[in-house]
Amino acid sequence: MNKIPVAVLGGTGYAGSTLCALLDRHPRFDLRFATARTRGELRPEGSTRAVPVLPLDDAPLDEAGVVFSALPHGVSAPWVSRAREAGARVVDLSADLRPGSGARGVPYGLTELAREELRDATVVANPGCYPTAVLLAIAPLLRRGLIAQGATIATTAASGVTGAGASPKRELLFAEVSENYRAYGVGNAHRHVAELQATVARHGVDADLIFTPHLLPVARGILATVTVQIAEPIADPSALWRADFAGEPFVEVVDAPPSLRDVVGRNVARVHVTAAANARRPTLIVLSAIDNLLKGAGGQAVQNANVMLGLDECAGLPR
Amino acid sequence: MNKIPVAVLGGTGYAGSTLCALLDRHPRFDLRFATARTRGELRPEGSTRAVPVLPLDDAPLDEAGVVFSALPHGVSAPWVSRAREAGARVVDLSADLRPGSGARGVPYGLTELAREELRDATVVANPGCYPTAVLLAIAPLLRRGLIAQGATIATTAASGVTGAGASPKRELLFAEVSENYRAYGVGNAHRHVAELQATVARHGVDADLIFTPHLLPVARGILATVTVQIAEPIADPSALWRADFAGEPFVEVVDAPPSLRDVVGRNVARVHVTAAANARRPTLIVLSAIDNLLKGAGGQAVQNANVMLGLDECAGLPR
Amino acid sequence: MNKIPVAVLGGTGYAGSTLCALLDRHPRFDLRFATARTRGELRPEGSTRAVPVLPLDDAPLDEAGVVFSALPHGVSAPWVSRAREAGARVVDLSADLRPGSGARGVPYGLTELAREELRDATVVANPGCYPTAVLLAIAPLLRRGLIAQGATIATTAASGVTGAGASPKRELLFAEVSENYRAYGVGNAHRHVAELQATVARHGVDADLIFTPHLLPVARGILATVTVQIAEPIADPSALWRADFAGEPFVEVVDAPPSLRDVVGRNVARVHVTAAANARRPTLIVLSAIDNLLKGAGGQAVQNANVMLGLDECAGLPR
Amino acid sequence: MNKIPVAVLGGTGYAGSTLCALLDRHPRFDLRFATARTRGELRPEGSTRAVPVLPLDDAPLDEAGVVFSALPHGVSAPWVSRAREAGARVVDLSADLRPGSGARGVPYGLTELAREELRDATVVANPGCYPTAVLLAIAPLLRRGLIAQGATIATTAASGVTGAGASPKRELLFAEVSENYRAYGVGNAHRHVAELQATVARHGVDADLIFTPHLLPVARGILATVTVQIAEPIADPSALWRADFAGEPFVEVVDAPPSLRDVVGRNVARVHVTAAANARRPTLIVLSAIDNLLKGAGGQAVQNANVMLGLDECAGLPR
Repeated sequence: MNKIPVAVLGGTGYAGSTLCALLDRHPRFDLRFATARTRGELRPEGSTRAVPVLPLDDAPLDEAGVVFSALPHGVSAPWVSRAREAGARVVDLSADLRPGSGARGVPYGLTELAREELRDATVVANPGCYPTAVLLAIAPLLRRGLIAQGATIATTAASGVTGAGASPKRELLFAEVSENYRAYGVGNAHRHVAELQATVARHGVDADLIFTPHLLPVARGILATVTVQIAEPIADPSALWRADFAGEPFVEVVDAPPSLRDVVGRNVARVHVTAAANARRPTLIVLSAIDNLLKGAGGQAVQNANVMLGLDECAGLPR
Repeated sequence: MNKIPVAVLGGTGYAGSTLCALLDRHPRFDLRFATARTRGELRPEGSTRAVPVLPLDDAPLDEAGVVFSALPHGVSAPWVSRAREAGARVVDLSADLRPGSGARGVPYGLTELAREELRDATVVANPGCYPTAVLLAIAPLLRRGLIAQGATIATTAASGVTGAGASPKRELLFAEVSENYRAYGVGNAHRHVAELQATVARHGVDADLIFTPHLLPVARGILATVTVQIAEPIADPSALWRADFAGEPFVEVVDAPPSLRDVVGRNVARVHVTAAANARRPTLIVLSAIDNLLKGAGGQAVQNANVMLGLDECAGLPR
Repeated sequence: MNKIPVAVLGGTGYAGSTLCALLDRHPRFDLRFATARTRGELRPEGSTRAVPVLPLDDAPLDEAGVVFSALPHGVSAPWVSRAREAGARVVDLSADLRPGSGARGVPYGLTELAREELRDATVVANPGCYPTAVLLAIAPLLRRGLIAQGATIATTAASGVTGAGASPKRELLFAEVSENYRAYGVGNAHRHVAELQATVARHGVDADLIFTPHLLPVARGILATVTVQIAEPIADPSALWRADFAGEPFVEVVDAPPSLRDVVGRNVARVHVTAAANARRPTLIVLSAIDNLLKGAGGQAVQNANVMLGLDECAGLPR
Repeated sequence: MNKIPVAVLGGTGYAGSTLCALLDRHPRFDLRFATARTRGELRPEGSTRAVPVLPLDDAPLDEAGVVFSALPHGVSAPWVSRAREAGARVVDLSADLRPGSGARGVPYGLTELAREELRDATVVANPGCYPTAVLLAIAPLLRRGLIAQGATIATTAASGVTGAGASPKRELLFAEVSENYRAYGVGNAHRHVAELQATVARHGVDADLIFTPHLLPVARGILATVTVQIAEPIADPSALWRADFAGEPFVEVVDAPPSLRDVVGRNVARVHVTAAANARRPTLIVLSAIDNLLKGAGGQAVQNANVMLGLDECAGLPR
């Protein structure tokens, strides 16, 4: 079978290089080139071959059937347009085209919620890492309208430092992060809030989603913890979650709280749901763990491309 | 000035040894002995002197004016009684006498909420580490009745591994904890929930407190994150928190989200409060960081003893 | 092709469970059972199937063509004998039969130095993790007699905590290991010294091997650093190392100092050699990195079994 | 008593800010200002007061009795001259004036080896962190001429990441350092080698010092491990080390191998010496642990200033 030529714009950050490693091993994709500030080559992790690296301005976009953009937010959108004009289909990992960004008409590639929309899409906005974890946690509640009216969807999440990118900043040095932990973007100030709220709103839910991210002293992984009042008690929430995600290859509903190590290196979300004891109003706690660079970025991008092109959705993805 | 003789029951765990180090340096206390399984001596961290260590059964409780019990939950209560009978005043760091334990009439030593009650107390139940962080976060809401009726007090907290004690368990080995993160005691199943709910109930608040603890790959420190709907918008929540804690030597209301490193090694709680943007119902996010072994255990125990004995509340405590 | 039935004695420690995961995926081995204190089953990492677990005394040793023993030192030797009597070939991961142990006539399975001896062996003593790293570093010097007469082979090495096993000890708790580093077994006191010295002696080298191990705050990996005077200057030591290891599938001679991350998860040793500048007597510094659970334990055990049985030496091993 | 006005050039790096914190608490020094790229103020760790910060070119050097330079190597030397011309005495923490740098006549402030020379010095070159650890380990051997003729002083050392400074570089990000370990500057290529060799040479020792540094996944601390043949066996090396360092307030000769946690936060070196068993030629292993920011930088700088000015050598230094 012929392989489909693909390219990665922005291949040297953590998400971009994870994506390159996946594409390099993908049975149906042929990674033709990546872009970076300076010309050269990169060796995808675990690979023996070198991939050509070009500056953005020299990238032969017309040679790629699919272009993945891992360019920074704000930089990506015009390159998505250029790739489209060159005839490529595009998966954009930046925030530029996501719900809440102001862009319109671009399918939001949280694969499990949008599979049908993606099949013929020419451009897909790949979700943020935090929204992926949070929305997979509460998807059954959103789809079935089970959240109590006027409730607060209280969401805290903790991410490893690769979520903040590979650009050197003092606050990301080992000496600053080790033996430390803190929240940031508090008060719904994180960029991902718009993406989360737009998705909740699209499901017609009358609830406030409050999101507080935290920085963990680990390299990879996100754990989201959601506390939410529901309209009526659910006898067996775990069974409901399992039914809701039945057949999903990349969602694992589990009986024990997931840990980061359960998911790092894998393109899956592990979800656990429990009813709160000793609460006068029925309340659920939902936990969701992902690898921020796989299901939260490069892995889901490949998953979306697989769906867009009618390939096996699992092709080239570590489970 | 004469020093007051004191003793520590259970001096070899993380809380007990932190307590011994504080008492060793305390200007008004004389640490006479500690107990452990085997006779010997211990050298408090940073100290040049050796403290005698005895098995519990050989402990001369009548020689101590104040006995601190850092014995395990379930083991402590009878030794508190024996120390009382021997004439000592007691600070009990175990859960045995805390609110929600079934014990009655023992003042709950969250110092900032209970100072007056403590002055003449003979026994004080020292709070758990998580409840200390959480209750100091929301104390202004509880005291002023500001929480929305029927609200959920959604509380997540993350603790360093010393919170789980020094008894070797495989799940606490470095090889298991490093590069990992997980929730535990999910669904209001943690021992501290009763302590939290009893304290909330005592303030007559109609709200459900939901508590989800997490295990961090750090040695020391707790960060609690509380999301809660309030009855009416508060124009300047930070100012209200500052007013509420005015004059408190060990509570710092701060403008930026606190990190563990701000508080480790210090007997303080750092609290930060923000109103959530983009929420249709007024909602606050409150963050509270403490050192689990100081303000969350040994430090608060010394603070309580200082109050009980009419000493300077700050004596012997690192700020 | 028929698969060869194999078994693991001691399948729940870090080395044993790594071994089980490798055997579970091996194209030519069928992992029939493992042993542990209590009957049950274990799920090899990354596997979907459950492997039966039996107490040692109930283990049907005659059902296995190859028995791997990951039992503790001192416990293993009699079980090796029983497995032999039951007709199995054995790879013993304990120290019981290694050089320096007093046992005689058992081939020492540092594969790269002993391949021919292994082909028809019925029992092989799998090397310790530290000796594997150290001996692969200096193998070219030993084999070619290049060490200066009367020299000291000054060897320091640092290991992740899985090297100390999975039995819970306070000194291995996260709270003790994080942000810490120390030597242990100083003064040639480590169990591995006899194994190292016996191997050096077997090559007829008149040099003292001094070994100082250190405990790193990482889960996996060993880096050995050897400083040694050589008899004559070597013009291009790196070329000599490459020639010496030519064709070895699991030794990588590299131009830059190796890091643990280069080798964790892989059954390889990465070796780097440099001549010391500004030394009046010719001196080399050799660095060698391995994954202590793979090339340092379970991986090398499978490599040895592959050689013993005439299979592809690389079968089932991650490179 | 009047306090002596002092200043810090380069106050925002890890060494500079540690130094500012020490000087802020020093009983006899008054920290007047520090320098940085941009004007402002800094709050020394643990302090409640703000210290003025000026760009270098605006620094009123004539207001300081003692100037500490924590400027980068290559930048520092001319500012040392300017501070001298302005009448200040200077402690230079950079490498610019150290042995092996080419500069002449500047006392080398390894306090324990140079106390007399320092008393009237106007400028002192503060040692590098690695040389401090290494030279304190072997000082008794150097001073007493005990090293075997023609021996190799095989030195490996491992440092926390603050030793590499606070300038953000990708290789120092948490995501790169965690769960990793590697050597660097291999082959006597590290800047500190000249400083080490010059000091060894000054003692007339005919031995090659080989130095291999390693990067640890910890924030603070250095452990040096030295393996060296000695001319004659030493019956009780530990007693000899104790005698050699008798009366030294900041050197602790200990019976067990030191760990980083023993010394972090303290201006001390902990040294342990053992004779190697099973060696045909008498060989010692010496371990030395320091806090790279205290005894390895800012602490020793204050110790040197105390000596230069005839103050109590321990003033303002944590032991």
